[in-house]
Amino acid sequence: MSKLRVLCFSLSLDGFGAGPEQSLENPMGIGGMDLHEWVLPTATFQQLLYGKESGTTGIDDDFAARGLQNIGAWILGRNMFGPVRGPWPDEHWQGWWGDNPPYHTPVFVLTHHARAPIAMAGGTTFHFVTEGIHAALECARAAASGMDVRLGGGVATIQQYLHAGLVDELHLAIAPVLLGSGESLFSGVNMRALGYRCVEHAASDKATHVVLKKV
Amino acid sequence: MSKLRVLCFSLSLDGFGAGPEQSLENPMGIGGMDLHEWVLPTATFQQLLYGKESGTTGIDDDFAARGLQNIGAWILGRNMFGPVRGPWPDEHWQGWWGDNPPYHTPVFVLTHHARAPIAMAGGTTFHFVTEGIHAALECARAAASGMDVRLGGGVATIQQYLHAGLVDELHLAIAPVLLGSGESLFSGVNMRALGYRCVEHAASDKATHVVLKKV
Repeated sequence: MSKLRVLCFSLSLDGFGAGPEQSLENPMGIGGMDLHEWVLPTATFQQLLYGKESGTTGIDDDFAARGLQNIGAWILGRNMFGPVRGPWPDEHWQGWWGDNPPYHTPVFVLTHHARAPIAMAGGTTFHFVTEGIHAALECARAAASGMDVRLGGGVATIQQYLHAGLVDELHLAIAPVLLGSGESLFSGVNMRALGYRCVEHAASDKATHVVLKKV
Repeated sequence: MSKLRVLCFSLSLDGFGAGPEQSLENPMGIGGMDLHEWVLPTATFQQLLYGKESGTTGIDDDFAARGLQNIGAWILGRNMFGPVRGPWPDEHWQGWWGDNPPYHTPVFVLTHHARAPIAMAGGTTFHFVTEGIHAALECARAAASGMDVRLGGGVATIQQYLHAGLVDELHLAIAPVLLGSGESLFSGVNMRALGYRCVEHAASDKATHVVLKKV
């Protein structure tokens, strides 16, 4: 069966998936972009975002590439889609990523406020799901046609799916930075009691990669 | 001036320095010994604990060895010294480590209950300090004769010294294990606001080592 996977999700040493005070200017929160220094220069990411043929190879790139393999749909929390809170004021906001977002699959955005789907260039369509996390997963699985569903985040959304026992796998990249405050992935989540163990562990100069699965 | 340093302090991926339900049988808490698999086989540790000339070398051993260099005294929280809580019932308990503890320096144990010092084999003397963390540091610095003071733990003791702004350096070893619950080092401690940054980062197969300092 199609799996629900968290992939390439970056954490600080102190366990934060985003910094404090997220805003239009600081979508990752203060200091949050430092979490992603391992992935930005990789060949996979440079190709994905900029169509460039250059970029780094090695452990970081291997994990970046794995993050895109066999993914047929994505699920995002509302705050990952944008800074707009509450009812949509209009149809203006179409995500952080410009006309051609780097998903290239259906993307299911969790929200309490209904909105018509948005078809973007490159095969990404944003669908807005108001019926909760189970409904979003059902829609994403149907859209993925047997491939896996990638759960993009943020922290609050991942925690909801973890508590519901629905996440098959997490690849976390622990960056050598301290954020001090923000959204703490493991706060209030007992990963061991939920059945997860670390099944893979590899480090580059820029991040420690771990894969957590139920065993 | 003599520095106060946390060295070779192991954390789980989810940020715990010890597992839940610490006891005489499980001094590190349930699963807590898994945190220390990186250090146990090292040449430094095998020599220190068993007088053996064998053991592993490399990144883990390098950090284990650094943990013993230029250390003139230790500070431990009461719970690291033993499982006894409240007033000392008698003089029976002399630490976890047998007749010849692996400190070989004066060791200052924080406690609310006075007790006479205990001189052990190999140069370790346990002193019991009832006047709080500042007094313990003052005593340790005096005893260290210009060398550094190592703050052994546990988590609650380290947090007290962090909040007081007294820790010069932390070397943490993040082990690829999940503990799920226990004592969380970063819970309620904003390391970034306290001025710490990650200044060194190296990984072995068994742990990711980071050094945090005020910059």
